[in-house]
Amino acid sequence: MALNAPMTDKTLTNGLVEIFTGSGKGKTSAALGLVMRALGHGLTVHIIFFMKGNYLYGERNTLSQLSNVSFRSFGHEDFVDPQNVKPEEREQAVEALHAAQEAITSGKFNIVVLDEVNVAVAWKLIEIEEVLKLIEEKPPNVEVILTGRYADQRLIEMADLVTEMVEVKHPYQKGIMARKGIEY
Amino acid sequence: MALNAPMTDKTLTNGLVEIFTGSGKGKTSAALGLVMRALGHGLTVHIIFFMKGNYLYGERNTLSQLSNVSFRSFGHEDFVDPQNVKPEEREQAVEALHAAQEAITSGKFNIVVLDEVNVAVAWKLIEIEEVLKLIEEKPPNVEVILTGRYADQRLIEMADLVTEMVEVKHPYQKGIMARKGIEY
Repeated sequence: MALNAPMTDKTLTNGLVEIFTGSGKGKTSAALGLVMRALGHGLTVHIIFFMKGNYLYGERNTLSQLSNVSFRSFGHEDFVDPQNVKPEEREQAVEALHAAQEAITSGKFNIVVLDEVNVAVAWKLIEIEEVLKLIEEKPPNVEVILTGRYADQRLIEMADLVTEMVEVKHPYQKGIMARKGIEY
Repeated sequence: MALNAPMTDKTLTNGLVEIFTGSGKGKTSAALGLVMRALGHGLTVHIIFFMKGNYLYGERNTLSQLSNVSFRSFGHEDFVDPQNVKPEEREQAVEALHAAQEAITSGKFNIVVLDEVNVAVAWKLIEIEEVLKLIEEKPPNVEVILTGRYADQRLIEMADLVTEMVEVKHPYQKGIMARKGIEY
């Protein structure tokens, strides 16, 4: 169907590298909001979820309803313990990185989102050098968006646009727990 | 069709007040990403764009493809000059505020987004007292998300969750202009 066909004639003349980092809320959300806007202009998007496992997150249900956007997710359902990383967690992250490389160089996508890649780097699931290389060698017309706290300083230096989400006030401070439909 | 019918049995037991503010990128995007997630869980959402006029922003094209989300936009296409606010700009913002109140108290929406309301307050298009009253009197099961830089301190005090987007690095510094499909 025409509506589902990617509009391959649309190109970004100048695909930047954007980072959403910091400990505040809204990093993945900001990337997804940006994806919504891009899709509305007929751009094509691929999202790699580095560390979210197979939970049926609400955002994925919604993404499935939209045209021109695809995603793959990696990692396990349990939260990784950075002090005790399991071999299969590292394997998943490395696989995610390969998928990212494939997507970025495929010529199929205007925008590639690497969700939580910063955390995967900080917890040494993947090598920072590999991510830097990926960014350095990206085609100029592909926009890459990296999310997750602990963005590496070398990545920040390489990026065009970096936003830090700062937590000014958080309901967990009041003892309110994460709520389905809002936080996950 | 069943897929388009709002799932009215879904309720938020504890609708919070969230603010995305600061001069960095990603405030409206974070709200929209949160909307995507909420929609994926079957929640109903209404968005009031306070100051975005009738531009065909990409995000609106995408929102139109999704179920259970509706929006209204106010304001004119020209950017408001805070030193020289026109009467019709003030009227539009007041109308937006009324629409917000209507949506919040309608019982139809789990989440109401007031996009750029902080700027409307800061530029005195609407009274802060009116916004505070709106928040104070909101039904407990409705989540309200306010975006825009210059969030008023009294609003921050009233909110449950406040994130400040801090600009660490911005491509405008390098002379790259806003690009269709990405920034607007």
